[in-house]
Amino acid sequence: MEQRLSLITLGVADLERAIVFYRALGWEPSPSSVAGEVAFYRAGGMVIALWSRASLAADSGVADTGGWGGVTLAHNVRSRDEVDAILAAAADAGARVARAGAPTEWGGYSGVFVDLDGHPWEIALNPGWPLSADGAVLLD
Amino acid sequence: MEQRLSLITLGVADLERAIVFYRALGWEPSPSSVAGEVAFYRAGGMVIALWSRASLAADSGVADTGGWGGVTLAHNVRSRDEVDAILAAAADAGARVARAGAPTEWGGYSGVFVDLDGHPWEIALNPGWPLSADGAVLLD
Repeated sequence: MEQRLSLITLGVADLERAIVFYRALGWEPSPSSVAGEVAFYRAGGMVIALWSRASLAADSGVADTGGWGGVTLAHNVRSRDEVDAILAAAADAGARVARAGAPTEWGGYSGVFVDLDGHPWEIALNPGWPLSADGAVLLD
Repeated sequence: MEQRLSLITLGVADLERAIVFYRALGWEPSPSSVAGEVAFYRAGGMVIALWSRASLAADSGVADTGGWGGVTLAHNVRSRDEVDAILAAAADAGARVARAGAPTEWGGYSGVFVDLDGHPWEIALNPGWPLSADGAVLLD
């Protein structure tokens, strides 16, 4: 199994509501999305999808007891101002800011918003992980 | 907010057990990992991390009620045989195969394993999403 992720699917309760939320943050579904069914977002060399959480549970062979399941996403940026701006935009779009932007013990600056379906995103400036021009994080 | 993911953190109950599991599938933590604390995996232009689920919940500002939380990962490959081989390797390493490899209604072939901490991975051949040489999926 190569060391890479092709697709992450976020289960949502209301697809249109979720598309509107992510559009407010600047995201636009790929033309390969299926209206009313699934939204695909090109995200560098991988894809982020929004799909019915009930369908995703059935397709994944798991029971859905609701709530958070031990997965947090992170989006790294280049400045503290960018962290704060994204958290503010997410809040304006209806997200809960679970942790306001603040210095972290690992020498960075970050905050967390939780989207309309309970998926947390940490927005982070991490000086130890410089971003390439296209936003990639290239670890050793 | 640019349309990309920098890091996905999978909460785990036992870090060493999780490292052993992913090593059995061919994954090796980056030298930037912190022994006994967190494992980071370079995954193309992003990072996959394994960290204490309890710490992740606290850091993310969410309540953890246990179970699955509406997120499924997918790893796309180039042949049906590769799908079956990865599912078999995951089962050998202790994963539950939630869906055996089989043709899908979208014209591909896939199956799902659920890792030792309940995180599902769909392993898929998707003829509509060709992989680049380095394994990237480049949607329109």
